[in-house]
Amino acid sequence: MSPPYRLHYAPDNASLIVRLALEELGEPYETALVDRAAGGQHSPAYLALNPHGLIPTLETPRGPIFETAAILLWLADTHGALAPAPDDRERGAFLKWLFFTSNTVHAGLRMLFYPEKYVGADPGAGNALRTRMQTSLKTHLTKLDTLAAAQTPVLNGIPLTALDLYLPALLRWMALYPAGVTGWFRLADTPHLHALAARIEQRDSVTRAKAAEGLGETPFSRPRHATPPEGSAR
Amino acid sequence: MSPPYRLHYAPDNASLIVRLALEELGEPYETALVDRAAGGQHSPAYLALNPHGLIPTLETPRGPIFETAAILLWLADTHGALAPAPDDRERGAFLKWLFFTSNTVHAGLRMLFYPEKYVGADPGAGNALRTRMQTSLKTHLTKLDTLAAAQTPVLNGIPLTALDLYLPALLRWMALYPAGVTGWFRLADTPHLHALAARIEQRDSVTRAKAAEGLGETPFSRPRHATPPEGSAR
Repeated sequence: MSPPYRLHYAPDNASLIVRLALEELGEPYETALVDRAAGGQHSPAYLALNPHGLIPTLETPRGPIFETAAILLWLADTHGALAPAPDDRERGAFLKWLFFTSNTVHAGLRMLFYPEKYVGADPGAGNALRTRMQTSLKTHLTKLDTLAAAQTPVLNGIPLTALDLYLPALLRWMALYPAGVTGWFRLADTPHLHALAARIEQRDSVTRAKAAEGLGETPFSRPRHATPPEGSAR
Repeated sequence: MSPPYRLHYAPDNASLIVRLALEELGEPYETALVDRAAGGQHSPAYLALNPHGLIPTLETPRGPIFETAAILLWLADTHGALAPAPDDRERGAFLKWLFFTSNTVHAGLRMLFYPEKYVGADPGAGNALRTRMQTSLKTHLTKLDTLAAAQTPVLNGIPLTALDLYLPALLRWMALYPAGVTGWFRLADTPHLHALAARIEQRDSVTRAKAAEGLGETPFSRPRHATPPEGSAR
C-alpha cells in the first residue's frame, strides 16, 4: 500500500516547509520530484493537481492541496499538532500570523526572487521592486522578532507550531537568494528569530530533510546553497 | 453589555468582507470607524491592536484578530458556518482556495491600487507593476470562474462560504479602483463569478452592509463608488 501522502517537491523550494511538517508529524509520505528545469510544474499532469503550476502540491486521500500555508494548516488540524486547535483560545492569534506570513512575508520573498513576474523585464522597475521589498521585509521581520520574543503558543513557544517551521525556511531563503543580492539581510538583526532557527535545525525532522534535499549542517542559522541528491535548487 | 465583536472598519475597505460575514452569521457586533484621512490606522491605539496598521481588525473575546482571511476562517470555525468544518472532506479544497485568494488575488489588488508601496514613486515602474498585475489577475479570475462553475462546497455552491462573500467584494474593487484605470476588467468575462456576484447582493446581509457603507443597489454586479454615511471611501 502506498503512503497516504505524496509531496510534489523541488529541492530547497517552498515544498521544504511541507516536508518538515510531515516529518514532525511522523506521517508516512512519498515524494515526487518536479523537474523545474524541464518545466515539470507546467505539465498537464501537474496542472491537473495544481492549476497554478506552483510547488508544492500535496496529494492526500481527500484530494490534492496546494498553497504552502493551506497544506500546513490542513495537516495540523487533521493530525492535531503544529497549530492551536480550532477551539483553542490562541487559534485566532495563530491564524492572523499564519496568513500574514503567507500573504505578506512569503509573497514578499517571491517578489524579491522573481521581480520579472511582477514588473516585467525592465531592470529599473525590477530593482525598484526589490529595494522596496527589502525595506518592507525588514519591517515585517522586526515584528515577527517581537512575536518570537514573547514565546507564545503561536511562535517560538511550546508546543511546536507550523510557523516555527515556516519562518526558519523563509529566513534561509532570504539569506541565500537571489545569489549576490542578499546584503540587505542579516539574521543577527532579529535575534529571537535567529535563536528559533538555530533551535529548529537541531530537530530530527530537519536532520532527515537536510539529507533528502542536501541542505548542509546549519540550514537555517548559517545557510549555504543546497547540493541535493536529486534535482537542482533554483 | 457590549457586543462580543468590535469591527475596526473603513467604508468600502477590506473590512466590508468581515462585515458581510458577521451579518451572515447573525452575530451582534459594533463598528469603530478608522479615520484614514487622519491616519487613524497608524495611531498608537490602533497599532496596539494591529501592528501592521492595516484595516480590518476584529476585536473578539479572545483578543484582536487581523488579516481579512484569518478573521473569516476564525469566525467560520467559531460559529460553525461559512466554511467546511475542519473534519469535512472539502476542508482542504476550501483552504487552498482561501489562501490563494488572500495571498495572490487580494495581494494583487493591493499592488494594482497602491503600486507606490511596492516600487516607489517612479511612474514607469508603477505602470509596469500595474500592467503585469492586470494580466495575472485575469488569469487568476479565469481559474476562479472555473471553480465557480463547478458549484462545489468551496465556492458558489450550497451552503454559502466565506469565499462567496470575499470574491464578490474583490470583483467590486477591481471594477472601481483605481478610478480611471479599470478598463482591463470586465465582470462579463467571468460569467460564473458574475452570477455569484448578482446572487450574493440579493442577500439580507448585503442589504444591511449597503446601508451601513453607502454601496448602492448593485454593489457587486454593477458597482458604483460608495457614498458612505460616515467616513469616506478611498
